[in-house]
Parts: sequence; C-alpha cells; structure tokens
Amino acid sequence: MNHVSPATDLDHLFRPRSIAILGASNDPNRISGRPLRYLLEGGFKGGLYPVNPNRETVQGVKAYASLADVPEVPDVALLAVPAALTEQAVVECIEKGVRAAVIFSAGYAESGDDGLLVQDRIAATAKAGGLRLLGPNCLGMFNSNIGYFGTFTQSLDREIPSPGPVGIVSQSGAYGSHIAYLARKRGIGVSYWITTGNEADVDVAECLYWMAGQSDIKVIMAYVEGVRNGPRFRAALALARRNRKPVVMMKVGRSEVGAKAASSHTASLAGSDEVYDALFRQYGVHRAATTEEQLDVAYACTRGIFPQGNKLGVVTLSGGAGVLISDSAERYGLDVAPMPEAAQKQLKELLPFASVENPVDTTAQALNDMSLLSKNIHIMLEQGGYDALIGFFSTVPSTRTLSAPLRQAITDGCAAFPDRLVAMEMVTDEETVRSYEKNGFLVFEDADRAVLALSALTRFGTAFENAGSEAEDDIAAAAPLATGQVSEYEAKRILGQAGIPFLDEKLVNAAGAAGDAADAIGYPVVMKIVSPDIEHKTEIGGVLVGPGDRAEVMASYDTLIARAAEHCPDALIEGVLVAPMAKKGVETIIGVSRDPVFGPVVMFGLGGVHVEVLKDVAFRHVPFDKAEALSMIDQIRGRALLSGVRGAPPSDVDALADVLVRISAFAAAHRDNIETIDLNPVIALPAGQGVVALDALLVPLSRIGA
Amino acid sequence: MNHVSPATDLDHLFRPRSIAILGASNDPNRISGRPLRYLLEGGFKGGLYPVNPNRETVQGVKAYASLADVPEVPDVALLAVPAALTEQAVVECIEKGVRAAVIFSAGYAESGDDGLLVQDRIAATAKAGGLRLLGPNCLGMFNSNIGYFGTFTQSLDREIPSPGPVGIVSQSGAYGSHIAYLARKRGIGVSYWITTGNEADVDVAECLYWMAGQSDIKVIMAYVEGVRNGPRFRAALALARRNRKPVVMMKVGRSEVGAKAASSHTASLAGSDEVYDALFRQYGVHRAATTEEQLDVAYACTRGIFPQGNKLGVVTLSGGAGVLISDSAERYGLDVAPMPEAAQKQLKELLPFASVENPVDTTAQALNDMSLLSKNIHIMLEQGGYDALIGFFSTVPSTRTLSAPLRQAITDGCAAFPDRLVAMEMVTDEETVRSYEKNGFLVFEDADRAVLALSALTRFGTAFENAGSEAEDDIAAAAPLATGQVSEYEAKRILGQAGIPFLDEKLVNAAGAAGDAADAIGYPVVMKIVSPDIEHKTEIGGVLVGPGDRAEVMASYDTLIARAAEHCPDALIEGVLVAPMAKKGVETIIGVSRDPVFGPVVMFGLGGVHVEVLKDVAFRHVPFDKAEALSMIDQIRGRALLSGVRGAPPSDVDALADVLVRISAFAAAHRDNIETIDLNPVIALPAGQGVVALDALLVPLSRIGA
Repeated sequence: MNHVSPATDLDHLFRPRSIAILGASNDPNRISGRPLRYLLEGGFKGGLYPVNPNRETVQGVKAYASLADVPEVPDVALLAVPAALTEQAVVECIEKGVRAAVIFSAGYAESGDDGLLVQDRIAATAKAGGLRLLGPNCLGMFNSNIGYFGTFTQSLDREIPSPGPVGIVSQSGAYGSHIAYLARKRGIGVSYWITTGNEADVDVAECLYWMAGQSDIKVIMAYVEGVRNGPRFRAALALARRNRKPVVMMKVGRSEVGAKAASSHTASLAGSDEVYDALFRQYGVHRAATTEEQLDVAYACTRGIFPQGNKLGVVTLSGGAGVLISDSAERYGLDVAPMPEAAQKQLKELLPFASVENPVDTTAQALNDMSLLSKNIHIMLEQGGYDALIGFFSTVPSTRTLSAPLRQAITDGCAAFPDRLVAMEMVTDEETVRSYEKNGFLVFEDADRAVLALSALTRFGTAFENAGSEAEDDIAAAAPLATGQVSEYEAKRILGQAGIPFLDEKLVNAAGAAGDAADAIGYPVVMKIVSPDIEHKTEIGGVLVGPGDRAEVMASYDTLIARAAEHCPDALIEGVLVAPMAKKGVETIIGVSRDPVFGPVVMFGLGGVHVEVLKDVAFRHVPFDKAEALSMIDQIRGRALLSGVRGAPPSDVDALADVLVRISAFAAAHRDNIETIDLNPVIALPAGQGVVALDALLVPLSRIGA
Repeated sequence: MNHVSPATDLDHLFRPRSIAILGASNDPNRISGRPLRYLLEGGFKGGLYPVNPNRETVQGVKAYASLADVPEVPDVALLAVPAALTEQAVVECIEKGVRAAVIFSAGYAESGDDGLLVQDRIAATAKAGGLRLLGPNCLGMFNSNIGYFGTFTQSLDREIPSPGPVGIVSQSGAYGSHIAYLARKRGIGVSYWITTGNEADVDVAECLYWMAGQSDIKVIMAYVEGVRNGPRFRAALALARRNRKPVVMMKVGRSEVGAKAASSHTASLAGSDEVYDALFRQYGVHRAATTEEQLDVAYACTRGIFPQGNKLGVVTLSGGAGVLISDSAERYGLDVAPMPEAAQKQLKELLPFASVENPVDTTAQALNDMSLLSKNIHIMLEQGGYDALIGFFSTVPSTRTLSAPLRQAITDGCAAFPDRLVAMEMVTDEETVRSYEKNGFLVFEDADRAVLALSALTRFGTAFENAGSEAEDDIAAAAPLATGQVSEYEAKRILGQAGIPFLDEKLVNAAGAAGDAADAIGYPVVMKIVSPDIEHKTEIGGVLVGPGDRAEVMASYDTLIARAAEHCPDALIEGVLVAPMAKKGVETIIGVSRDPVFGPVVMFGLGGVHVEVLKDVAFRHVPFDKAEALSMIDQIRGRALLSGVRGAPPSDVDALADVLVRISAFAAAHRDNIETIDLNPVIALPAGQGVVALDALLVPLSRIGA
C-alpha cells in the first residue's frame, strides 16, 4: 500500500483525551450548545473546555475566555463558531498547538466560488500549522466508547447512542444521522460515527481506512457521494477486506439526476458509476441499493459469520413460503440444494406429511409436537451441508400458546451448531425479536430481506477468503512511455512485449518486400497502411483483406501508399503491414481507460454491438489477478457466446483471462502515463488455441497536454 | 369475454345469509372449533347451525344432530370433518340443497395419486349435485363486512379483522394469513379473504373475477403458484383493470427450485414464468418481487389515486436524501423533472440556501420557520406539474418540539391539492404515522420503498386509462386450418392473407419457368426448394443465394431438385421458389407458441444471437393492440439496434408493430389450432420502407396428435 500514509494522527480527532469547544453556548438546545450537552450526557471522562468570553461557566462547566487560556493543549477543538469567526479560530488552534479540529459551520465550497476560496485558505493554513480538519459543513462525529460526542446532530435529542459493533462514515450528515438512528432502533450499537462534510482535509477515504483498523467494530456502513482520492479510497477498502471488516456501502448518484444533485450538494467529483461498481465488486464491498438493505446487511454482519459457500437450507411451516424463499434465493445467488437422500428418509420418518427435499415444509403438524421441529432443524444443520439456514415462522412466535415452546424448539435444534448462520422470518414484537437475537439468531420480518442479507454474508466470506491473492500495487511504476502519437505497429510492439498476443505481422517499405513477407506468411494475407497520423485506417481504404498471390500483394502495396498520399498527404507513413488472415473465433474488445478519480480501469466486452449498443461491459481497477479476470468475463450478459453456441466450439476463456491480467499489469505499471488502450478486436479462438489481438491503439497520457 | 360464465353463484360462498358447520367442536381452540368461535366473535348476524350429533349446544349455540335437521337450507356449509367423512358430508349437502361448501381437510391431490382420485370423485359428485366447493386443503375464507369467518386460520387468534379496502385471494392458506396479518398490522382493513387450496372446483381465477366485481374494495392482493384455467384468469385480470381495481400479485415459482416446490405443494401446473410475466405486463398487474413490496404497493393503492404521468417532485431537508431518492426514481421509471424557472426563483426567495431545481433541498433552515416549508410544498404542487410528491423527513416528526408544527406545515402546504398523491419518508411511531395517514398522506419508513410504490401507482394509472383500447376476444374463431404439414409456400400464402408482408416470390415447376420468374423479378435472385416434408432447407443445400442471370437460374433449378431427390427421396416436392434478394435491414424474429395454460403467445426478439443466446425476448398474450406491440418492442434490451446505430438508419418500428398486431389477431382467431408460427427472419427496413418476412413456418396444432 504505497498510496496511503498511516492514519495515526486521526486518533486525536476520533479518540481525544481532551476537548475544547470554541463558541460553546449555555443553551443546550442551540446548535452551539448541543455538543457540550451531549458530551455531558455521554459522560465524557477527559478534559472538557468550553471557550466563551462572556461566561464563567457554560452548562455548569468552567468556561475559558479564549483557547489560549485553556490549561492544557486539547487533542481536539470543536469549532462551534459562525463562519465569519472560523478562520481566526483555526489560527488560534494552531497557535495553541492543537492537532485536530472539527468545523461545523456551512457557507464554504458548497455555497459557491467565494466559499471555496475561503475553504481552501483555511485548509492551507491548517496544513501548514499541522492541524487536521474535519469539515467544514459537517455534523461532526462521535465515539460512543469514550462518551465523545463532537456533534450537534438533532438525532441524539432523545437518546445518547450506545457502543456496539457498527462504525459509520458518511459524507452527508443528515444521512449519517438517519442510519445511525435506524441502527439504534434495531438494537444495534454504533461505536464510531463520522460525517465528513466538505472534506477540506480529512476525507471519507481516510476515515474508512481508520475504521478498517479498529478492532472493536465488526462492520462499517458508509455513505458516499463522490471520492476525492481514488487510490486512498481503494486502499481503505483493501485494508477493510484484509481485516475482515465488511463494508456496506450506500454510493449514491447512480442516476443522472442523482449524480447532478450529488455534485451540487457537496461540490464533490462524482466519477463514473461503473467505475465505482467495479471497485466494490473487486474488493467485496456490498453496495446497497436502498437504506433498508444497508441496514439489513449491516445487521446480519454483526453476527460475525461469513460463510464461503452459498448453500441455503430452508425450513417452513408452509409450502408457499418455501416457494417464495426459493425464488429469492435464486435472485440473490444462493443455492437451495436438496438434502441428502438418507437425511430425507429420516425427516420423512419424523414428519410423514412433510416435504423433505429442501425447502423442508414441516407443515403445521410440527407445531403439535415441537420436538419434531427441533429434530428436523438438527438434521438439516447436521446433514444438509448448508452454509446458512432460514426458517419461516410468520406470526407463530406471537401466538400465546406457541411462543415459548417454539423458541425452545428452534434453539434446541440449533444448539449443536453455534457457528452456523441461522436467520428467522418472524412477524412479532420487538421483545420476542431480541430474545431470538440473544440466542444467536438473525430475525427479519420479510423473508426476501433475510435471503438478501444472507447472500451478502456469503459474498463477504468469499471476498475475505480471496483477499490474500491480490498482487496489487506490487507492480513498480514502469519507465514512462514515449509521449506523442504511437502508431499501431509501435503499439503492438510495446504491448507485445507486455505479453499481449498479436498476429505475426511484418512492416515493409516496398512492394517487393511486401511480396517477400507474404511469401513467408502464406497466402492470403491482410495488408494495412501504418502511420501514427492515421487513427482510423478503414475510413481511407487503408486496409485490404485477402490479396492471394505475390503479384496481388505487390499491387496492393502500391494502392495503399497511393490512398494514404491522396487522403492524408501530410501523414508520416511508416510503411505497410503484411499479416496473416485472422483465424475464426469470437470477437471481443479489451480496453483501458483512465478514470479521473481512480486512474486506469480495464474494460472487457464482446465485439460488434455488444459493447457499443448493448453496453454489455465489465470494468476492473488495475492490477487484478486471474480469478478476478475470470469473474470479469463471467459478468457480461453475453457470456454464453464464449461457451460455444450455435455449433461453435467453446472459446479459450483461460487465455482471454491471461490477456486481461497482462493488460491490467501493464496499465498498473504505466498508471500515470496511459490515457487509452484499445485492443479491438481480440479474437478468442477455440479452447486451447489462445487468443489473438488484431488491432491496437495506445494513447499516452501526455498527448492530452501536447 | 366469452370464456367465463358470471360468477354469481359464488355469492352463496362468499356472502352467505346462513351457515352450517359440520363437525363443529365445542372447544374454541381446536381446528374444528375455531370457525364457530370466529363467527361468534365476528358477530355474524345470519343463521348459524353447528352440526354435532353428540351435543345439544356447541360453544353455546344450539346444535343439530345432522344437516338434515337444520331448519333452513344454509347458503354455505363449512365441512370441519376429517377427510374420511368429507365425501359423505358432501352428499348430505347436496341432499339438503346446499349450494356451496368449504372443505378444510387435507389428504387429497397434494398427498398423491390416491388422494387425487378421491378429490376428483368428490368434485364430480358436487358438480352433478349443483354444489360449489372451496378447497379441499384450504384455510377457508372470510368476509369481514358481515362477520363471516369461515376459516380456522390461527392468525385470527388474537384479533378479528376489520373491514377495509383490501381483498385477498391466495392459493396458499399460510401465505394468505401472513399478508392479511401484515395488512392489519399496518392499519389496513381487509374485507374479503379467500384461500383456494387444492381448487377441486372454485379456483383462484374465479375468485379474482368475483373480487374484481366488488365495489367496496379498492385493491386486490393475490398469491398464485399456478393457474388451471388460463382464459378465466386472464378475463379476471381484464375485469379488474376495467373496474379500476389494482391487482398486486405475488406469483411464485420464478426459479427452478421454486417452480418445483410450487408444483409439489398444491399439485398445480406451473406454466412458463415468462408467459405469466407477459400477462401481468399486458393487464397492468403489479407483480411484487417480495412480500414487503406487495404490502407497500397495496397500501399505496388504498389512497385510490392513480396518476397517469410519472413526474415526481422531491422535497427534503437534506441533500443526501435527495440524491438517494433520485436514484430510486430512475430505477423505477419516475422522472425527477426540474421545477419551472419562475418557480425556482420563487423558492430561492423563500430559502436562499436551498437547492430549488428538484430534488428541492430546503436544508434544515425550513425547520426554523415552518411556514417556509408550507409555502415551498405549495409552490411545488402548484407549479411543478408533478404527478406525485415525496418528502423526506427522517426522524424530525419524532422530535419533541418539531413534531406538531411539522405536521401542520406539511398539511397546510398540501391543503389546496387534495387529489394529489403525496408520500412521506418518516421514521417515527405508529401513532404519528396514522395521524399523517388520516390527513391523506402515505407514510413509509424507507424512501426507496415509497418511490417503488408511487411508481406502481402511476403504472396502474396508465393501465386503467388504456383499458378501453383492448379489442380482445372480439376476434371470432376462424375456420380451422388444414391439418397436417404446411409448406413454407403455403404458410406464406395463409399468413400473407392475414397481412404479413413477404417478398414477391414465385413458385415454379420447371427450369424455364424459373428463368421467366427471375426475369420478371430482376437479378440476382434467391431460390429455395419447396416441400412440406423438408422443414430445414439449408441443411440439405436447399437454398441458393444470388443466381445472377437466366442461365444460372435455370441451372440452379436443376441443382435444387437434384439435392432434394438425393437427401429426401420421399419428400413431396411442390416446386422451387424464386424470390428477390432481401433488402438490408435489422433482422428480427416473430413467433407464436402455445402455452399449455394460456394458449397462444406472440414472441418478439432480434435475430442472430439475441433470441437464442441472450434470451432477449418479449412475450404477449393474443390478441393485442398496436400500443402493446410497441411496448413489446421497447421491452427488449437490444431496442437501440432498431433506432439506428453505427451509421445505420432507424428501422420501421411502426410497420414492425403492425405485423405484431396482425400475427396476434391471426393467432387469436386460430387459438385452438396453432401449435407454432415462426417468422424468421423478419427484416425491419429503414423507417417508411416497412418490414418483410423472409421465411415462415406454420405448424397446426392437430399435427401433434397425427
């Protein structure tokens, strides 16, 4: 990880031993009064220094006329002062030697160019003075482990949060408050909560990195509108994966209106949504489509069980629910695999009317003798080989006579398997839900939501397991490419050295040499004009397919030279390429493009209309390994075309993945000097025969400025 | 509607004036005791006749030793007797002159062949005796309007349902109970609730038809595993649409495991999921993916407002929420259209820091002066042209000081627009939710769920509006097609008469005649062997493309005849087709196939890999109109290929839709004697030039039996 410096100085901000509050109000309900109120209610044990020149005490705490008067150097200063006084407060912090400050006030980058100017000035001052900044235009943060509530969010109005397994990082204060409240409502404690606002200094990436290193949280929830530092963000996700901390992400701005609204909201750069999607996929981040989903998945993560397999056992009291859950399982990629035959026989002996294959429908009969239900669940967990089990019990847990025996039966059935992931669908009261949770069960009111959450856990499991295989960023930066335009021939030479397979082509500069080359290659051949100044050769008739003998090849040479002279009289002509006819296979396209935030990403798709019109493409951040390359190939909708359809043989997907890995390594090594690479088409030959790229375009980054 | 007899005799079943309960138990908690208990708790006012030979009274009600002793002919008999006694009970019902009975007991078709045999026998007896049956293996039904609870479902254990705007029809008793309970929990009354079980007689289609005719419900929720009578089901959906009753459908069995589980559950025929999907799309049924979605949409329907437009106004206190909602809106097809410029100016004057385009982010400033929020909402509703408005308020409605003023402000803002659809995202207690609902607002805890529900309402609005345009089933059944194999030439003649455009082709029987035909058509031509016995001509070299002069045409004639003789010596050869070369355009495929439940469906897709490999196809039940044909074309993922891509002109989509309508009318007229029609390819020419089908295959149904 050579892109990120360790985030230790954030400890001042997020785990302070002493706090100054500049502009602290005596009114505990005012914005400038709430932080102190929450700190008092939260029982913060360290030094607490309200700064207010007009009062002896603030909310009962001794106040200081200025920061200079505070008897120690506080770890963090909360700036609860108006925008107009903020710049001066920052200077005072630096003079005092404070290392971190939180700026609540708005009116900076989000309000226009003038605000941005002031914000930049403040950021520069802080940086020069060694002061880290959270905000401005943020709601602050809290660390409930130590009672540190450096925030004025209204959502703490009724209740101070309890510590727990969740950490939240949000670019939106309101959204961060919203999900923290929803988590609390669901009985999940939140230990760390950070809102980053305008990110004049500390950004969402750095906070994520910091959270990924905290041993006392089990899951990170994040809300992101746009990322400023792509490599740092990526490094944070990589660290989270390495530390087995699931990240449950709400990345907004997928839609056009949404992206526009996001950029006007915090003036951040949106970046391409596909590029974010690729990153999340690559690092095993769960991207939630809805807030509810974000909460559901985070809730499920708090169990801390992340299976690698996707086999789901289903037990219900009703056939209909089993069907419903099977549909959901398919939707989310879980496998409702049948029970082994022997186990089915055992189940059938217990419950003669039951469906025993999986979904197992015990029918309501199981309620007449709850021990049958226990045995049923035990057998499923013991013999079914399921990575997760879901039970559907609807309102039964609320039925007066059945409630207690049901809980006992379910708990008994699972007792021998404490490490197995078991979720319950139940429509019941909060108290009953908590009682099941205490016994280690996840409880959902909606079965589909439960299945979605379970599927997310298995994907985390797989991602955590594969975290070791990444070779990322081990690739040293390569020597810069030559600037200026690169001809097709030169592009093929450079990329050929990087391991991309091309046809055996010869560059010639005379008709006779063309004939010699064709004699060596074998007829018929393909001939192309070569010039760094002619990007689209076909448009000027610069490609001739099929010259079949020496005479025709020599004549074709003259034709190509003449056409180039006619259409592009000023072009530098390097010669003519003589190449064998392409073999038959499936046309694919491999490209590299440069995301303004994240740098190079590799694109893969099928040729023809698939990429251009159907937008059937997959992206990955570079570099990546072969498993990732294969998952990239599997991701496209037209994947079946590589499996051999309509009588065609299956394509050499293995070789295709190798080429993707090589181009990703090349792009990573040249991350700072590639604008575009376009290999189009890349022919995937039948399995065992490899792939071959027919054309190459390489545009160095420096060309843009030229 | 010529497929369905009126459902009036179901009134005996669903709206009885008197009820007999055979096998009524004195124990109100036993299965056979619960129906009487619920009827008593529900306050049923009609005749109530428990039949129990062992007791004078049952649960305090005078009992009768046999049905024969009951002093009147009850409208309905509830058979709470064991399976072994059911058959006799059915006979007694018929002897008494009872018109409808509910069979609770299981052990019939769902338990195997023996059970099916008994079930069929009972059904036949009932039919002969004029007795309608609900069940067996069902939980019964209720009509809460008259306190009629003909069910033993445990879910009424705690509370008897109140009447309300919802009707529920479910093939699964457990699922039906589940959603009825969830509806109640959400404060929505359910007037009718029917579970159909094994459907020995009354099926889900008939119940839906009956419900679609009830004026006192606003929305129908249904759970379906498989349909027995396709045309009746379709007629029910058509009636619901005509009567402006939204149907919110949970059709399970989409997945392979799910479909298998469904068919083992109630032994019903699953049918193709795509065919169900097409039907729901065509009749404006909302197919819910999850139970939560089903409840959300039904809940939203109870407002009774179904806008036809899809413009969504968004008002929030937080920029982040606005972005989130914009993403959701795009996902579900709603348009977050900008406010008019003038209105934006007005809003900006009210709230200088607000984003005013839409989403409108008032910022928390609006909370300081709630009248600003009121005015803001009023301006949006008055000038934005929005079909629906959503507000995001998170936990603010729960904030002690802000709760009441917020509700007042929102209510004031909407007061002038009582017919506008307004939904609120709020995280608050039930009482507060109900208070907003009383003022006409929909309330959701999750913004995405709110947007999904609003989008469903706009789709219902569009479907209801277009309900008049259907011409369905007005097409008289046509004279049966000839049985046996149909040659390409004959297929083209038949379909050509139905308005399908083909090339100007000539069937010839001699080389000279082929030359004459080609002279008339113009060179080059395409030539094909014609035989009802050769389905796949290309495989025997029976198609020659491009003969360019008279001599070549004459030689080609001989070649084709020789090839046919060689490969298919026994085939009847009708001659050789001489046709013009096809014009260039986009290849499409139009087909008709026969669904075992629903009859003919039309399929549309693009040629090449799109249908076969990418499965990019759309289906519709026949007949359908041009609007439906256009929506069918718009549905495919590769739609852009018809809009002119990569330099190609846009295709004649209008003419393509005409052909789809014509083939649908033809399939409808011949619904009982077509197995398959395959028009492949159908070339969509550039706009204004029409389409032309190059090949036709027509397989009459009778051929299957031949």
